[in-house]
Amino acid sequence: MSFSDILKQVVNGTEGALGALVVGLDGISVEEFSVSSEIDLQSMTVEYSSLLIEIEKGSQTADMGSTKEVTVIADKAMIMLRRLNNEYFFVLVMKPEGNFGKGRFLLRMSVPKLLKEF
Amino acid sequence: MSFSDILKQVVNGTEGALGALVVGLDGISVEEFSVSSEIDLQSMTVEYSSLLIEIEKGSQTADMGSTKEVTVIADKAMIMLRRLNNEYFFVLVMKPEGNFGKGRFLLRMSVPKLLKEF
Repeated sequence: MSFSDILKQVVNGTEGALGALVVGLDGISVEEFSVSSEIDLQSMTVEYSSLLIEIEKGSQTADMGSTKEVTVIADKAMIMLRRLNNEYFFVLVMKPEGNFGKGRFLLRMSVPKLLKEF
Repeated sequence: MSFSDILKQVVNGTEGALGALVVGLDGISVEEFSVSSEIDLQSMTVEYSSLLIEIEKGSQTADMGSTKEVTVIADKAMIMLRRLNNEYFFVLVMKPEGNFGKGRFLLRMSVPKLLKEF
């Protein structure tokens, strides 16, 4: 299954999903699938990838081990970031009223599938 | 209901909870309740409060509005941060195998109670 197919599956399976991406820690996206032009996925991702690096530093400093998942709920969107490996992570963007639990479940289920493609 | 009683209620009601705090965006905690010495809540909070400020900047830049909630899942702990107002947020720290959904629910339910105390 290709990156693109996996992203489609997660987005189409999650009520209220706006898009999904596979992104490097440098903020450059490898693959992107979006069903909405409401949100600028690219610019959002650049912002959040640097945050993920900061959060990782924070987790290490606080002796909590490596960060696996980060969720941000803002007024206009929910973002889930799931680490794939040392260099890449998976991002799912949803509407605030989207199905959070379903998105989280599909995101987690797709990690092994995505890792096969690296 | 005092800060301390509300924190106790959330921590005791969440399976796997390690502690809860009310913290200023400057990282200084107002109230703290902990049932474990496994994790240094204070140092952890200082790390994450600066992250919350960064995340807020990211959300604003990405035009997503204000950040309401941030969750970080690391190897050794889960942390939920919920914004109370412009200056304070509520933090719940759990074991990785703790009841995430229950913690999130109790955290949200306690926000109006905490706000009454300001």
